[in-house]
Amino acid sequence: MDRRAFLVVGNTATTKPFSLNDLPGAGRMDILCRCISQALFISHGIRKNVDVYLLLLGGCDAPKSIRIAGSEVKRMSPDERNIAGHIRKALGIECGKEWRKVHSGVYVSRKNLEELLDELSQSYKVYYLREDGADIREVVGSMKTPLFILGDHMGLNADSERIVEKYAEEIVKVSPISLMAEQCIAIVHYELDRLDS
Amino acid sequence: MDRRAFLVVGNTATTKPFSLNDLPGAGRMDILCRCISQALFISHGIRKNVDVYLLLLGGCDAPKSIRIAGSEVKRMSPDERNIAGHIRKALGIECGKEWRKVHSGVYVSRKNLEELLDELSQSYKVYYLREDGADIREVVGSMKTPLFILGDHMGLNADSERIVEKYAEEIVKVSPISLMAEQCIAIVHYELDRLDS
Repeated sequence: MDRRAFLVVGNTATTKPFSLNDLPGAGRMDILCRCISQALFISHGIRKNVDVYLLLLGGCDAPKSIRIAGSEVKRMSPDERNIAGHIRKALGIECGKEWRKVHSGVYVSRKNLEELLDELSQSYKVYYLREDGADIREVVGSMKTPLFILGDHMGLNADSERIVEKYAEEIVKVSPISLMAEQCIAIVHYELDRLDS
Repeated sequence: MDRRAFLVVGNTATTKPFSLNDLPGAGRMDILCRCISQALFISHGIRKNVDVYLLLLGGCDAPKSIRIAGSEVKRMSPDERNIAGHIRKALGIECGKEWRKVHSGVYVSRKNLEELLDELSQSYKVYYLREDGADIREVVGSMKTPLFILGDHMGLNADSERIVEKYAEEIVKVSPISLMAEQCIAIVHYELDRLDS
């Protein structure tokens, strides 16, 4: 099956260890956890062909980026608190510009958006999910090895958007109404799954 | 906009107050919380035309049922822990066969599956989400005021299924691959939203 990836930008997401009892208070870490859950998990299993990247832009230690590889990840379950525990562990580790392994399938670095896209555009075709894009149902048939970029509840700011537009093959919308980030991910998978079946 | 409802069966979901720090340990309450989140929330808003029903079948105090009305609910956010707090509060309240209001938009009762469906089939057409059903994309156009019934990670047991089949208009599948309950809900909304737009 074709590889797929998602890059979710957390505009205010904390880059330091945080309380598992208040994920919204950690710069809306709850959104990022749900995005990972929807991107990686299916019923009783994990999508091994999927990688998820998070870009955390909150606080004075930003940016940090996290990579979760579906083919390697272990002991992760789809609930927000479990996923948040993995992210918290990653944020407690010293890292630089290169990916540093936290444990099976989880990596952390200080890559910024441009550095992430420089790397990922070598392996993926980049699609930017935005509400004024082309209808996914019209374009999904031509997608090969796609990476989908999307923002959290704040979308992408103008600076981030300028960078993304340099790399994006196409701007795509997933629904006639404005959805939460994790719902967009579920729908992207659904449309691609229908093609594969 | 047409009303929509979901009924999610939690086969092992606890019927007593539980720890917010271990939702999977409360009979997979995490799944039910994600189902509510996906059913009710969109970006920066709540679907006021949606009601969600949970049937909790875990423990010696079962069954209990919970109703969350999108048009009335207040102070709910889409993260699992917040939603779990609302459910926990409902489970701490004495109730009988009639719906008892917990607070805005949240109700609890001791209705069982048959009693729920007796009530809901007065207002909704009942669809049962199961992996061997008709492709949703083929049948979504004819759905009016639908109620979708689905199980948690264990599906529905044989007894529950016999009851549901008495009320179900049609058995519908939402994806070629086996998905988590909350993903099925996101996709059902997506297909209906495309029709409405």
